[in-house]
Amino acid sequence: MSNEEGSGQELLDLIKGFRRSKVLFTACKLKVFDTLKNGAVLTAEDVAGKINASVCGTEQLLDACAALGLLERTERVGVVGYGNTELASLYLVSEGEHSLHGFVTHYNDHIWDLFTHLESAVQEGTNQFHRVSRRRADDSFKDSFYPSKEAQLQFTRAMHDLTKLGAHAVATAFDLSGFTSACDLGGCTGALAHRLVQEYPHLKVTVFDLPEIIELAPSFQPVGQQAARISFMPAGDFFKDRLPERLYILSIIHDWPDDKC
Amino acid sequence: MSNEEGSGQELLDLIKGFRRSKVLFTACKLKVFDTLKNGAVLTAEDVAGKINASVCGTEQLLDACAALGLLERTERVGVVGYGNTELASLYLVSEGEHSLHGFVTHYNDHIWDLFTHLESAVQEGTNQFHRVSRRRADDSFKDSFYPSKEAQLQFTRAMHDLTKLGAHAVATAFDLSGFTSACDLGGCTGALAHRLVQEYPHLKVTVFDLPEIIELAPSFQPVGQQAARISFMPAGDFFKDRLPERLYILSIIHDWPDDKC
Repeated sequence: MSNEEGSGQELLDLIKGFRRSKVLFTACKLKVFDTLKNGAVLTAEDVAGKINASVCGTEQLLDACAALGLLERTERVGVVGYGNTELASLYLVSEGEHSLHGFVTHYNDHIWDLFTHLESAVQEGTNQFHRVSRRRADDSFKDSFYPSKEAQLQFTRAMHDLTKLGAHAVATAFDLSGFTSACDLGGCTGALAHRLVQEYPHLKVTVFDLPEIIELAPSFQPVGQQAARISFMPAGDFFKDRLPERLYILSIIHDWPDDKC
Repeated sequence: MSNEEGSGQELLDLIKGFRRSKVLFTACKLKVFDTLKNGAVLTAEDVAGKINASVCGTEQLLDACAALGLLERTERVGVVGYGNTELASLYLVSEGEHSLHGFVTHYNDHIWDLFTHLESAVQEGTNQFHRVSRRRADDSFKDSFYPSKEAQLQFTRAMHDLTKLGAHAVATAFDLSGFTSACDLGGCTGALAHRLVQEYPHLKVTVFDLPEIIELAPSFQPVGQQAARISFMPAGDFFKDRLPERLYILSIIHDWPDDKC
């Protein structure tokens, strides 16, 4: 292959990349990985029956997942079976300590639709919530992402999943062993706080977030003695309220323009 | 980073990958690369003016393209400028020997929408043309992809672009110097045929395709003496017509079920 063809193939990969994301989203949405949890190995026909889908479509979806390293395809005495890879067992089965299922669902149900309108977003210089829901272009992030209790829970679960994934790296990026208290601004369900108290035996962490988020937090708490060192402050809106003097921030600033940060 | 976090980050990359495709599609659609052709280096404000889009949205799009290696971002005396990278100049400017612009447009305008409905496709076991246009689920590929002359030209351009990219590799995969004639079944605009006659001075190639495609072929022909060794046969439908005895096929079979191949 010439260099020219090589770079062309890389570009082709970028052009076609969105199909890989959607294959993963669809398999999660149709509960393929849940169907194959605990080491189950099933045929395409069996999976199709369990997820209530066509056999030919299911077979193509399973083969695409296998090509992406999400499923393992095995053939024994002429029968093709599919099972979760380690990656899928760890992250894609919906129940599980490290599950990213909520994050995948959020990306499939909301972010895909927003990106469908990227052209208009660039032309208008606004978010596209108004094109994918009944929101207005000037509605706040909160109104757009939390239009109902159900949507609020889904978004909270997505953020919880994402935070868990990076929590260890963030908690250990700096040595915080000299501190006894910290505050996580916009700390959502306390996923990072939980990791911090695991890492630092003398640290107490306050999670600061909107009252409606703090209300959901208890159902996301892991059991353990360390949890006693985490408290939640449903005080408010970080654009309006007085903030604690010592605080850290994981990833709440990237969404806002410079003049609000 | 632990192994666990490493594999989680890879998965996150797969989940978010569709956004990269859409950034590329949007920049092509808004003619960003055309605006920056011939070595032009412009500010985000200048590009925004030329593509008739918001400055803040354009700036974010240009930065995203730079992160993908499609644009080069330079800063001189405090002024940030953007220019096409070699990759963009070669493949993404709409006019040009190697341009993939038509292929990108096809993927943005059609394939993205079809993949939006992947869940239904798996459930129903059918293509999703009926959800993205007025076609019926059982309409043929031809009726679905060629609903109008304009759509037919767009699809033909996309296939022409794609064929060009792989033509050298296909033409040289086997030594065909012992042959004097060949037929490209479903050969579209003759992009592969053109490459073949370049590689093999004694070869004459017949391109076999639907009459409406052959009709479009002349506008895609490169100039050159070698073109005289390519002939087009608007004879027909490869599912019905008698085929020549010696033929080769580039990529027309993958779309069809086994019983039609």
